[in-house]
Amino acid sequence: MTNIKDVAKKAGVSVTTVSRVLNNHPYVSEEKRKAVIHAIRMTNYQKNINAVHLIKGKTNLIGVVLPYFDHPYFSLVLKGITNQAIKKNYKIVLFQTDYREEREIEALQMLKQKQIDALIICSRATDLSIIEDHLQFGPIVLCEDIKSRKFSTTFVNHYTVFHKALAFLYEKGHRKIGYCIGRTSGTNSHMRELAYREFHEKYHLPYRPEYIIDQCIYFGDGEKVIEKLTTMMDPPTALLVTSDQVAAGIVISCQKRGISIPDNLAIIGFNNEPIAEMMNITTIEIPLMEMGKNLFLQAIDDAISSKEIIVKLIERGTV
Amino acid sequence: MTNIKDVAKKAGVSVTTVSRVLNNHPYVSEEKRKAVIHAIRMTNYQKNINAVHLIKGKTNLIGVVLPYFDHPYFSLVLKGITNQAIKKNYKIVLFQTDYREEREIEALQMLKQKQIDALIICSRATDLSIIEDHLQFGPIVLCEDIKSRKFSTTFVNHYTVFHKALAFLYEKGHRKIGYCIGRTSGTNSHMRELAYREFHEKYHLPYRPEYIIDQCIYFGDGEKVIEKLTTMMDPPTALLVTSDQVAAGIVISCQKRGISIPDNLAIIGFNNEPIAEMMNITTIEIPLMEMGKNLFLQAIDDAISSKEIIVKLIERGTV
Repeated sequence: MTNIKDVAKKAGVSVTTVSRVLNNHPYVSEEKRKAVIHAIRMTNYQKNINAVHLIKGKTNLIGVVLPYFDHPYFSLVLKGITNQAIKKNYKIVLFQTDYREEREIEALQMLKQKQIDALIICSRATDLSIIEDHLQFGPIVLCEDIKSRKFSTTFVNHYTVFHKALAFLYEKGHRKIGYCIGRTSGTNSHMRELAYREFHEKYHLPYRPEYIIDQCIYFGDGEKVIEKLTTMMDPPTALLVTSDQVAAGIVISCQKRGISIPDNLAIIGFNNEPIAEMMNITTIEIPLMEMGKNLFLQAIDDAISSKEIIVKLIERGTV
Repeated sequence: MTNIKDVAKKAGVSVTTVSRVLNNHPYVSEEKRKAVIHAIRMTNYQKNINAVHLIKGKTNLIGVVLPYFDHPYFSLVLKGITNQAIKKNYKIVLFQTDYREEREIEALQMLKQKQIDALIICSRATDLSIIEDHLQFGPIVLCEDIKSRKFSTTFVNHYTVFHKALAFLYEKGHRKIGYCIGRTSGTNSHMRELAYREFHEKYHLPYRPEYIIDQCIYFGDGEKVIEKLTTMMDPPTALLVTSDQVAAGIVISCQKRGISIPDNLAIIGFNNEPIAEMMNITTIEIPLMEMGKNLFLQAIDDAISSKEIIVKLIERGTV
């Protein structure tokens, strides 16, 4: 296929000159400009969609930032996003960050350079002020409750949800409640920790930092949680587990060890992933695909909007 | 931000004229061309990366075609691809197809239009000849054993693997063996069916089409498999299950119904997903992330290569 070098050779000019002509740089002689245009026509220089994007200022690509997608939480949000993108004739550019700031910045750079039309940040490590600096280059949609009118957001009120789930376990008689979470940083995690702390103050229960177990992301982390609990002198009698994957891992680990659920340990999972129904796990249902759909629609909308996603407790056999 | 309309307004020309200047269309008067170039400078018309791509003929975007990614098989292949893409400074454009041809064609179109540098097709519905027509526009890498030197491929020899797994069950005394699969079409499924058919011929066992259960993709499909088996007069005593997700669903469904594994039903899963280890499921380990890594490296390599991925049986408690 013809490339810029072929065009330059045909026109008898340097590649730089061809580039200047393509970029409408003024310091090209009319003679050379004509030679380049003639060469483009002679070599049938491939029509390039990037030229179309250059003119329209649109790529129909939407960037999606997430730490990892091989996890039901993010893969279901991403599925909601892509299903909607297909309907609206957009494609998704994936930024898998592992919560590394430099990769999030790369995504912001691509927005700045117009390689993508908008950016959906499902979860982030980068400071909000840095992200805010990039709003001038295109819409940026967030998946957290940040109380800013500069960003469109689709979020779950994790403070209220955590509070209600803790109260539910309290009513069932639990006084030693712990929780498992993916990471302790980030808006959503902070809201949950605040709810946990305030719940313990309200009910005059001792706050025990060892009851907060982080780095709980995958199925196999359930095993680690139970290992940790078995080393405690005074382990919790109930756990909020912010992913059904991990909750399922905990249930299976307990089965292996003869720990009875819910008698020895009560479990509330999160998301209502298919595994939660199959394994009869009590969980907080979060409509993740609906969240994804809304995030996408906000990304292609110039108006700023904010939508709280309503969740519900599904009572099954683990509490 | 300045767009093409602002430039046109400032230059006192139509948007079409600006577009013509940007495209180096010859039928623009020199006066108008100068006015447009002046207007671009005055309005500080945003430097656009698409102009850079236009010159380089490269976008550093690789397209990945897969039917769905919220499934461990594809999400792990995709993870292998993206991990490698990050190292090589490429981004991934996701084509979620649900095996719909028009979406696969869209991906091929984007290759043709140079919006992506190469295309990795993890699984497809489109005829190979149509895909072959697009090889002229950039590398296309396949995840199946097609015996063509036109494509780079990374594949598992599903014929041999299925044959070995069936022979393993035969040695354990099973004579009524069925299998569960995602779909019956596609190269990999055809290779498996051929192995299944030839195995039955070789051992003079009756071939029963009802022992082939398709549409087995997600965890919840395990329940459907067991429902189907319970309606059979003469159900199989062993199943090859081409996804550990589904195998795990089958195991849990059997637990609920008091069907003993492996005594009443033996199970061999595929992939060695984390759930297989947790649930002690005998499985064929496929190094999916390694496959993804190799697919990516082939996509950015101009040379054609073919790599067979070696798998192994991991014996656990379900056979």
